[in-house]
Amino acid sequence: MEGKEEDVRLGANKFNERQPIGTAAQSQDDGKDYTEPPPAPFFEPDELTSWSFYRAGIAEFMATFLFLYITILTVMGVVKDKSKCTTVGIQGIAWSFGGMIFALVYCTAGISGGHINPAVTFGLFLARKLSLTRAIYYMVMQCLGAICGAGVVKGFMGDRRYDALGGGANTVAHGYTKGDGLGAEIVGTFVLVYTVFSATDAKRSARDSHVPILAPLPIGFAVFLVHLATIPITGTGINPARSLGTAIIFNKHKGWDDQWIFWVGPFIGAALAALYHVVVIRAIPFKSK
Amino acid sequence: MEGKEEDVRLGANKFNERQPIGTAAQSQDDGKDYTEPPPAPFFEPDELTSWSFYRAGIAEFMATFLFLYITILTVMGVVKDKSKCTTVGIQGIAWSFGGMIFALVYCTAGISGGHINPAVTFGLFLARKLSLTRAIYYMVMQCLGAICGAGVVKGFMGDRRYDALGGGANTVAHGYTKGDGLGAEIVGTFVLVYTVFSATDAKRSARDSHVPILAPLPIGFAVFLVHLATIPITGTGINPARSLGTAIIFNKHKGWDDQWIFWVGPFIGAALAALYHVVVIRAIPFKSK
Amino acid sequence: MEGKEEDVRLGANKFNERQPIGTAAQSQDDGKDYTEPPPAPFFEPDELTSWSFYRAGIAEFMATFLFLYITILTVMGVVKDKSKCTTVGIQGIAWSFGGMIFALVYCTAGISGGHINPAVTFGLFLARKLSLTRAIYYMVMQCLGAICGAGVVKGFMGDRRYDALGGGANTVAHGYTKGDGLGAEIVGTFVLVYTVFSATDAKRSARDSHVPILAPLPIGFAVFLVHLATIPITGTGINPARSLGTAIIFNKHKGWDDQWIFWVGPFIGAALAALYHVVVIRAIPFKSK
Amino acid sequence: MEGKEEDVRLGANKFNERQPIGTAAQSQDDGKDYTEPPPAPFFEPDELTSWSFYRAGIAEFMATFLFLYITILTVMGVVKDKSKCTTVGIQGIAWSFGGMIFALVYCTAGISGGHINPAVTFGLFLARKLSLTRAIYYMVMQCLGAICGAGVVKGFMGDRRYDALGGGANTVAHGYTKGDGLGAEIVGTFVLVYTVFSATDAKRSARDSHVPILAPLPIGFAVFLVHLATIPITGTGINPARSLGTAIIFNKHKGWDDQWIFWVGPFIGAALAALYHVVVIRAIPFKSK
Repeated sequence: MEGKEEDVRLGANKFNERQPIGTAAQSQDDGKDYTEPPPAPFFEPDELTSWSFYRAGIAEFMATFLFLYITILTVMGVVKDKSKCTTVGIQGIAWSFGGMIFALVYCTAGISGGHINPAVTFGLFLARKLSLTRAIYYMVMQCLGAICGAGVVKGFMGDRRYDALGGGANTVAHGYTKGDGLGAEIVGTFVLVYTVFSATDAKRSARDSHVPILAPLPIGFAVFLVHLATIPITGTGINPARSLGTAIIFNKHKGWDDQWIFWVGPFIGAALAALYHVVVIRAIPFKSK
Repeated sequence: MEGKEEDVRLGANKFNERQPIGTAAQSQDDGKDYTEPPPAPFFEPDELTSWSFYRAGIAEFMATFLFLYITILTVMGVVKDKSKCTTVGIQGIAWSFGGMIFALVYCTAGISGGHINPAVTFGLFLARKLSLTRAIYYMVMQCLGAICGAGVVKGFMGDRRYDALGGGANTVAHGYTKGDGLGAEIVGTFVLVYTVFSATDAKRSARDSHVPILAPLPIGFAVFLVHLATIPITGTGINPARSLGTAIIFNKHKGWDDQWIFWVGPFIGAALAALYHVVVIRAIPFKSK
Repeated sequence: MEGKEEDVRLGANKFNERQPIGTAAQSQDDGKDYTEPPPAPFFEPDELTSWSFYRAGIAEFMATFLFLYITILTVMGVVKDKSKCTTVGIQGIAWSFGGMIFALVYCTAGISGGHINPAVTFGLFLARKLSLTRAIYYMVMQCLGAICGAGVVKGFMGDRRYDALGGGANTVAHGYTKGDGLGAEIVGTFVLVYTVFSATDAKRSARDSHVPILAPLPIGFAVFLVHLATIPITGTGINPARSLGTAIIFNKHKGWDDQWIFWVGPFIGAALAALYHVVVIRAIPFKSK
Repeated sequence: MEGKEEDVRLGANKFNERQPIGTAAQSQDDGKDYTEPPPAPFFEPDELTSWSFYRAGIAEFMATFLFLYITILTVMGVVKDKSKCTTVGIQGIAWSFGGMIFALVYCTAGISGGHINPAVTFGLFLARKLSLTRAIYYMVMQCLGAICGAGVVKGFMGDRRYDALGGGANTVAHGYTKGDGLGAEIVGTFVLVYTVFSATDAKRSARDSHVPILAPLPIGFAVFLVHLATIPITGTGINPARSLGTAIIFNKHKGWDDQWIFWVGPFIGAALAALYHVVVIRAIPFKSK
């Protein structure tokens, strides 16, 4: 009863539990109208014989392809103008990344879960929401999609122009240390994956079946906001597939030097968000079995 | 059961099917809480005697009229200023196109399905969601609405100014080949029509009757995002009615030369999106009858 | 049954009626799960003794006050900078008007219906959604709220600066005729009031009780979009209270000359939208009693 | 019955009560499908032994930390460029503040109520929605989170650059008096807290359990809109934790001089909003027990 109301009492949050501290986590969840789904196994052989498994991978490929195509084309259009005034501007780039994630998560959530980002897949894997097989399969498909998306943009722009404009590749900007870049990627990815966990919380889903339908909006907004803040520092990765795809197609020394930052940073950020959600918010380790 | 939960498990997508590959598509859909609606006939004579049929056409005309009026007026306001700084900017143009689609789809979805775009009508026709009669009727009304909308803008701006500013007509920008323009239109329309199919999926509608109510938001966002990316290349068509309306009212050599791109491109993009949705996502051809 | 599904079949709109033309309007509505609410009387004496009547007026006053305060302050911040680059820009002004309508309609819809605009009140009155007494009372409260809102902005900016910056008053811009201005106000208000009618349709409300909750979003977007398009022409009124409030506080010859345009235009636009909705979309005059 | 429909009749607001004035407030609420929750006690000892109490504080800390991190980093990125054209612009700053509030309220509403702002906590406390203990605890955690968030930004930017750029601290801009600044903070916070109260109204929640799910959107928009309007005046506080955090990390004379404005203003605004909601909108003092 308490559980049911707690979620909808935005603003109001009066004390309404009578358990002594420490036992709260357990009692809070027992006998409620939802059950924590059991952790996904690391390897599930039957999964590999299901069409929905392969379809999910195709959907991740297609979504990451479209994500890179639209966003990197937008970046190209903005950077080619010196004054930026006759373009959609840096803010337009942030809208492009955030808006695409909103639209694509909305479209693919029912097919593959709508990750479109190896860091999101990694965070959800750590929380045991999908098998290791599926996690690796998704990451490979996302990277392939990203490479193709960036490749098509290069095709449109022409080799010379694409290279001159930096190819949309992520690098740490002049005036910031590699540590700054790594930190920006960690906290930025934390914001994104924290939003993903909050929006897809099993407790929430059980109560309000329509919540996940709304979830793409805050998730897309999180991506938009991190771009607003960290484009001046790293160009904003928070998505290793996006960083790898542009690095491979750009394929310049400059694009490869900082590549590790855009894998290590997002994976650490996603791990911290998974930890925060599982330990602090959901207190799963303290639950009685 | 699996079907019911799959859609809401954003992020989490554990394997939960036990069918051998290949049979999955069939078993997935049998005995579920929705039925694939039967394909629309090519010609349905009774339709022509229904007031709702004519009302739908009027609604498509009105929506496309308002769409062109607001968007082309916004374009005029932006292009007349050299520095763009005292205008809503190129990003404002993208918001205008995307926002109008959001508002108009919301308003007319219950009356005509809210196409407002011959490419959308074409894609839905290929997926057999409406009859050939209705498809042609919609396209004609959309083109008429677009011509009137652009005409009213020309009336406000005056002939001389309208012509000097390019009349909001779509052309392939200097520095890009016709092939680039065609490609940009194909992928751009694919993004839009793919979103339309995802948002209006019968499987989704059956489970969550409120989903289509939210659908106008990602659809409008898709239009916004494609504009962010391809305004520098073609001015962004992805809507043959919009391209035809401005071409007719502008009526200059420059506006007509590339017109075919803005019909062939969107129609190919819509066809690919219909194919992707029907074959990959819904696997309808592989279903047992 | 057909009625229940029609609204949610976005995109798909196959023929599903079997009535001969002309009788459709009647049959479509008979035996459905909603009833057209009876027209409001012109004068309802009991209304005047209800606290909710006065509370509604206070809410309209407060909403229009906050609307003018935030929007005109935003306008002042933008116009005082020549280059606009160090301000939120003209696009920011459009967001301010549209966003405030979204937030305020959301907040006051349950108290007063959330009009915040004499043109909206007029349109809904013509469709007999509220009594003449209430319509006049709302309009008076809206105008008073607007005057106070603009007055507070003048207080913040100082008399001299406020006057130098034009006071946010609506006038037809140089290069456009009064006819252009009137036309822009008519079509702009049509877009807004058409969205209001679509979003609050009784047929829609009956089926999906949560639709009106979403309604503020397209309504706010409509205001945003009309501003994107017509700020260069008239500064965009489409709200006589907003135009009157700034004219009274600005109180210059320039602000009063075109004032009639910002009353006649919006009222004609609202009347046309009411006519379109009642006659074409809802076909109420053709219904059997 | 009347109560149930009133909320969804956006636009339409015909008189539908038959009570004489003055008694309306009582009769309106008696026998309805919701109950005004009892006021929270000032001090509830059991609360302190509950894990959910401490978890709520951690969530407020984390949310305010991320809020300051993203927003102040965005501010730094914009102010370091003179022309602003190669940044996300002042409008981008407004999106950053409003968007973060949207995403964070969405994420933490179910854990702590999603205040992220001492002024919101204060307003809800005045309306007796939470205990004094909890209110003070939340404010302390919010301020600590804000200090850490601003500190991390300073770490990224380097001391010299952070100080040169003003550290994102709130001050009354040149050309405005301290009274202007105080007034702007009062009305700005009123807009925000008024939206919070409207969105979380107990009457509304009872009828439409999904409304609070949508509530973060208008609340975030309110923050965005106030920033559009008052960034030129005070940089926009309306959140004492945000103002305190930047002042402490910036720690310059200039940042401390106006600090009182960003505590007194928001608290007065929140109190007025609570008063308006409780007395005018909900008429709680006039209700029979």
